[in-house]
Amino acid sequence: MFEKVVEIIREHSKFLITTHINPDGDGLGSEVALAAMLKKIGKEAFIINESPIPENYLFLSKYGDIKVFSKEYINIIRKADVIFVVDISNWERVGEFGSLIMRESKALKICVDHHPSNSGFADLNIIDERASSTGELIYDLGESLEIPLNEDIATGIYVAIMTDTGSFRFPSTTSRVHMIVSRLLEKGIRPEKIYREIHERRSPSRMKVLGRALSNLNIECEGKVAWFYVTKEMLEEFNLNTEETDGFVNMLGDIREVIVSIFFLERNGKEVKVSLRSKDDYNVNKIANRLNGGGHVRAAGILMEASLKEAIEKVLGEVKKYLTKE
Amino acid sequence: MFEKVVEIIREHSKFLITTHINPDGDGLGSEVALAAMLKKIGKEAFIINESPIPENYLFLSKYGDIKVFSKEYINIIRKADVIFVVDISNWERVGEFGSLIMRESKALKICVDHHPSNSGFADLNIIDERASSTGELIYDLGESLEIPLNEDIATGIYVAIMTDTGSFRFPSTTSRVHMIVSRLLEKGIRPEKIYREIHERRSPSRMKVLGRALSNLNIECEGKVAWFYVTKEMLEEFNLNTEETDGFVNMLGDIREVIVSIFFLERNGKEVKVSLRSKDDYNVNKIANRLNGGGHVRAAGILMEASLKEAIEKVLGEVKKYLTKE
Repeated sequence: MFEKVVEIIREHSKFLITTHINPDGDGLGSEVALAAMLKKIGKEAFIINESPIPENYLFLSKYGDIKVFSKEYINIIRKADVIFVVDISNWERVGEFGSLIMRESKALKICVDHHPSNSGFADLNIIDERASSTGELIYDLGESLEIPLNEDIATGIYVAIMTDTGSFRFPSTTSRVHMIVSRLLEKGIRPEKIYREIHERRSPSRMKVLGRALSNLNIECEGKVAWFYVTKEMLEEFNLNTEETDGFVNMLGDIREVIVSIFFLERNGKEVKVSLRSKDDYNVNKIANRLNGGGHVRAAGILMEASLKEAIEKVLGEVKKYLTKE
Repeated sequence: MFEKVVEIIREHSKFLITTHINPDGDGLGSEVALAAMLKKIGKEAFIINESPIPENYLFLSKYGDIKVFSKEYINIIRKADVIFVVDISNWERVGEFGSLIMRESKALKICVDHHPSNSGFADLNIIDERASSTGELIYDLGESLEIPLNEDIATGIYVAIMTDTGSFRFPSTTSRVHMIVSRLLEKGIRPEKIYREIHERRSPSRMKVLGRALSNLNIECEGKVAWFYVTKEMLEEFNLNTEETDGFVNMLGDIREVIVSIFFLERNGKEVKVSLRSKDDYNVNKIANRLNGGGHVRAAGILMEASLKEAIEKVLGEVKKYLTKE
């Protein structure tokens, strides 16, 4: 699987690495690990993304230099021999900067990804949907290159695997995943510190708004559907950014018997952001698609131009239709 | 470390296994794994506890027969050659049934535990406070006995390790822990299903009371202390058992900068249960001790005969005194 890419790496010297907009732990961790590997074998490696690093991943800067795209980097892009696009299933998700790479660079493009929907857009595509994370594939690449692990590489891969497996609990968590993590921990990385950086940085206001929303929780369809909402007024009262409601929907997964969780966020008078989560491979992507949203089987979203009341009615209507059909 | 116990196991045939009252994943998982090991080498093994299995661990019955003590089992106790007491630091924590074992049985008592406070009360004590869990020590014992893993053994050890490491994130999570778990997963156990059984069985009412409590969250001491409470009226309004508030205190650990988390539960007009959690090895056990409570460095509790208002004042007073001293 990695022979061709190993050959390409050995033959070239200047590498650019990028990932999707609004990067997550798998994208950022994979970038950091790959850059550290390339540097370890004497290559030049730059990480440039369209989006800034989210606050809870800023600690990764200690392990790899992650730049946010600006014009000053055009020369780096132009001079790159090879561009790695990691954790991306289609080219558009690089952001606007993606088209710039396509225009300004003659580099060979290599995609490393584990999304089943990957379109194979690059010159060379390393896609394995059975992998727990792109980070696991970067680990495999490191093995193929025979690059010994160091703390930078291990931290990047740990962050990628830990976040994309939901702390080693999603079905993608195989025996091999734990074997790899066992090797990473030999490099002195500290799970508790990393977990804290990523997951324990919430504001008190977020907790209060979450509390207010949970206290108005709704359960329907014989306990199978749980939904709740946050209004514009609640955000204003506690002075909370809409981004800080990320993750609210996951709270409902703790409730027994719930298969579909829904969170409605009133972003302003006209727009509602809907987050859907499911269990048992119940396909919430289908529901999102019907309302012009999208995502995955177990996690999908919709941006609706509607009042909160209208959005709730429409989404619950679709969910109920779909639940009775199954 | 295990030579003597291996010898004892080989020489005897009837085994009894028990753990502490209000058993947790480490106690129950260790029992199930140990019983399955003993059966695999042709021994008789009974698990008898004082407390019933908590609902979220009932699925473990598929992997091992866990009995709750009643008089009909006195003969089993009398006839046991060896009694394993697992995950217990002092004899009293077996419950009242513990003294019965001491009186009714002439068996050799073996304690397997990882608590640093272990008093060495048994005839043979296998104590290793560096182990992530008692389950890890049971795994080691299985290796010493050269018993191949099967699904029952693997499930018990997985539950023990997963719950006692907070899903592989507490500082006790070593490279070796992941190596062991990697081997367990080869036996076909499913992390997501186990996680769901243990952690995703909350009632909607619990969520609503948690929500109400969080919306009244308090932050003090420059953000280092977070506290909240549940009143008797809130429990009554949502018809919630006091036990269902277990875990509320852990929510506050997600808030950035918080070092000490406190949850006050008004159990009736006269009694308040206080739960304390800390980070950075901040010793909340010291605070609990001053108010006749107890526990561990990072997790402690107090049962106070006081009004909710008095309890909050007293505990916060001690926390503030202690925080300024450090």
